[in-house]
Amino acid sequence: MVFWKKLFSNSDAVTTSETTEFGGELLNSENQDASQPQIVFSTERDIDFYELEELCDRVGWARRPLRKVKKAIEHSFLVVSMWEVQGKKRRLIGFARATSDHAFNATIWDVVVDPKFQSRGLGKAMMKYAISQLRSADISNITLFADPQVVKFYQRLGFILDPEGIKGMFWYPD
Amino acid sequence: MVFWKKLFSNSDAVTTSETTEFGGELLNSENQDASQPQIVFSTERDIDFYELEELCDRVGWARRPLRKVKKAIEHSFLVVSMWEVQGKKRRLIGFARATSDHAFNATIWDVVVDPKFQSRGLGKAMMKYAISQLRSADISNITLFADPQVVKFYQRLGFILDPEGIKGMFWYPD
Repeated sequence: MVFWKKLFSNSDAVTTSETTEFGGELLNSENQDASQPQIVFSTERDIDFYELEELCDRVGWARRPLRKVKKAIEHSFLVVSMWEVQGKKRRLIGFARATSDHAFNATIWDVVVDPKFQSRGLGKAMMKYAISQLRSADISNITLFADPQVVKFYQRLGFILDPEGIKGMFWYPD
Repeated sequence: MVFWKKLFSNSDAVTTSETTEFGGELLNSENQDASQPQIVFSTERDIDFYELEELCDRVGWARRPLRKVKKAIEHSFLVVSMWEVQGKKRRLIGFARATSDHAFNATIWDVVVDPKFQSRGLGKAMMKYAISQLRSADISNITLFADPQVVKFYQRLGFILDPEGIKGMFWYPD
């Protein structure tokens, strides 16, 4: 018997709760109705790259070579996925990953939520899950590069824009 | 017999050149005078943590637990050091490291140059060396977070501030 942790209910407290068919941590487990789909977060890396590519297609991202996506996932410090689970079926509806030096800094990349599941607080819940995972690994400096349209989303999660004038900078090949 | 590569002379071309007592790549090797100290770049990770701490002290950085510094260096994708070498002696005068997913992104952290060696183009040469190392690993998105006083330094190296409105953001624990 495996117990799952409850995340991000009223208190943000983490307590053991119900089981699901798959690994991961259950959102709002105290209000579960077995007939309804459940939302589950996971840090497992055994992700179907084609399913991930379909998710990225749905938000309009340019396709990337799966060989490089596989390598990037292997060498990410944290991989977070969000699933809609009903009975024995599950569907990938969100993803994020972070690079890190395992000691001081982490940088979050490739945050994606299925458009059909947006505007329901699930992106926020997934990011809180990612932050809690990085914090439990004693990473204190969590960074990211935000597109203009999601800056406010990250600010609501507690991310600070250009703190003390620190600026995000990019170098691209010619 | 080991041959060293010449970096960042007139053409930025890399050619084999002279030897030194230590590993690494020699700055401006065609103009070497054996009686003068040489500047050498290296990606070796066998760095004396106390020597690195002294270097960071010289630029006024807050001290960090050596245990965590060791872990961060072990889990960095790239570690770059700059040395003043004369005969059998060498002295650490610069350092930088990068986290990466080994595929798409790298983030450069902890860029430091000994104040006595600043304003001579050595920080620029060290960063060019770091960029060349990341490019040779096929990393195309090189990022960093720049303090306000070094934004222009990185711009001169080709780093772009907030491209397309992308913003660097930080999350810190309460």
